Amino acid sequence: MRNLKLTIEYDGTKYQGWQIQGDAPTIQKTLEEAIPRIVQHPVKIIGSGRTDSGVHALGQTANFQTTSTIPPGKLIHGINAWLPPEIAVVHAEDAPPDFHARFSALDKTYRYTILNRPARSPLLKNRAWHVREPLDTPAMQQAAEHLKGRHDFRAFQSKADAASVETSVRTITRLEILRDREIVELFVTANGFLYNMVRAIAGTLVQAGLHKLAPADVKRILEYQDRSLGGPTAPPQGLCLIRVRY
Amino acid sequence: MRNLKLTIEYDGTKYQGWQIQGDAPTIQKTLEEAIPRIVQHPVKIIGSGRTDSGVHALGQTANFQTTSTIPPGKLIHGINAWLPPEIAVVHAEDAPPDFHARFSALDKTYRYTILNRPARSPLLKNRAWHVREPLDTPAMQQAAEHLKGRHDFRAFQSKADAASVETSVRTITRLEILRDREIVELFVTANGFLYNMVRAIAGTLVQAGLHKLAPADVKRILEYQDRSLGGPTAPPQGLCLIRVRY
Repeated sequence: MRNLKLTIEYDGTKYQGWQIQGDAPTIQKTLEEAIPRIVQHPVKIIGSGRTDSGVHALGQTANFQTTSTIPPGKLIHGINAWLPPEIAVVHAEDAPPDFHARFSALDKTYRYTILNRPARSPLLKNRAWHVREPLDTPAMQQAAEHLKGRHDFRAFQSKADAASVETSVRTITRLEILRDREIVELFVTANGFLYNMVRAIAGTLVQAGLHKLAPADVKRILEYQDRSLGGPTAPPQGLCLIRVRY
Repeated sequence: MRNLKLTIEYDGTKYQGWQIQGDAPTIQKTLEEAIPRIVQHPVKIIGSGRTDSGVHALGQTANFQTTSTIPPGKLIHGINAWLPPEIAVVHAEDAPPDFHARFSALDKTYRYTILNRPARSPLLKNRAWHVREPLDTPAMQQAAEHLKGRHDFRAFQSKADAASVETSVRTITRLEILRDREIVELFVTANGFLYNMVRAIAGTLVQAGLHKLAPADVKRILEYQDRSLGGPTAPPQGLCLIRVRY
């Protein structure tokens, strides 16, 4: 039995997220339908974690067990022929038997993209959050500094999911705001993410960039552990899972 | 009468290029239908030049005469509300009476994007040419050096259009190949472009990058003035008009 590790890119616009939910079109479901065409047996795909409806990935990872002996390069080519244009396997490799896409992950990096100008962008449609008012990115970075390190991120978690997670303590090792003219990108690396955590952080840092929150307020939000004090959850289309490290 | 200069961004995927051609959906036609909703009179839009079906723009420019007194910022906002998601006016300003989007242009810059890896990319679908075999970008740059400067670019012109152009002499002031991992971008600036010239250059430089042409062959193609010696015309979706300078 081989344990195959895949790296997957997708445009999440038309999908209801990663995770299988009945008959809804999801990335996991689409992969579990395409891969058996090539490996000739049913498969169970384990992803590194869920992504929400409308969220994209450049480097989602997954693994599955197979009896197929097809080499990785041919496997990619074959699977991609059965996948829709919005999903592609970009890398495949044999992994150790105990490799688990979720439990073996050391950290993950997300990118959140903001278009910051008055006019909308046809070429970033479904790829960025359009914020019309000018963002003070140094103020955003100042606010972001309070979130780095090991904290209880309860205040940056969707309430719907709050009950299902054992601990809300996570460690953010990178939180960087980069601007290239009208494009503002947040890069966040952590050892794990709570439900909607990056979008809650992006929404809150944008409030800091608009001077509706002071950088020090972010520290208080974290300490008070109250989601309602933070900014709104940023929309999904700006979010992209870019890397899972093992 | 005001002479308004517009900067326009578009995703050309679903459009039959810039130029009005009867009832076909084109960028110019869509603008000529949207703008009168705001300025309250018919308009004639003059573009800096045509772009082909499937070609994109981050900075196409155009001008039109209007009796409207709406300030540029409000005009952008109003026009964009009447334009489809694939087209947006990103800048508007009052121009001198003799400003002409085509004849006043000093030079134009195009970007041509190539995805260079075995697997296709969902997030670059309709935005890049997918070349699976590894490209030797230093060889492409070496070949490109022969095209810089003032030359007769007859060999880099689509034959269909050859008769309609008075001279095929143009001056390329920038021709740069940049690689960022799997993405190769060509930037070309010239005082004017022949029909399909950037795509013919991209197609030929890719042949050099695949070692199917030697860099010196490009010099010969230019001198022999024979389109059939060059590489195939690169597909439209990789091309984007990024700037028109005045």
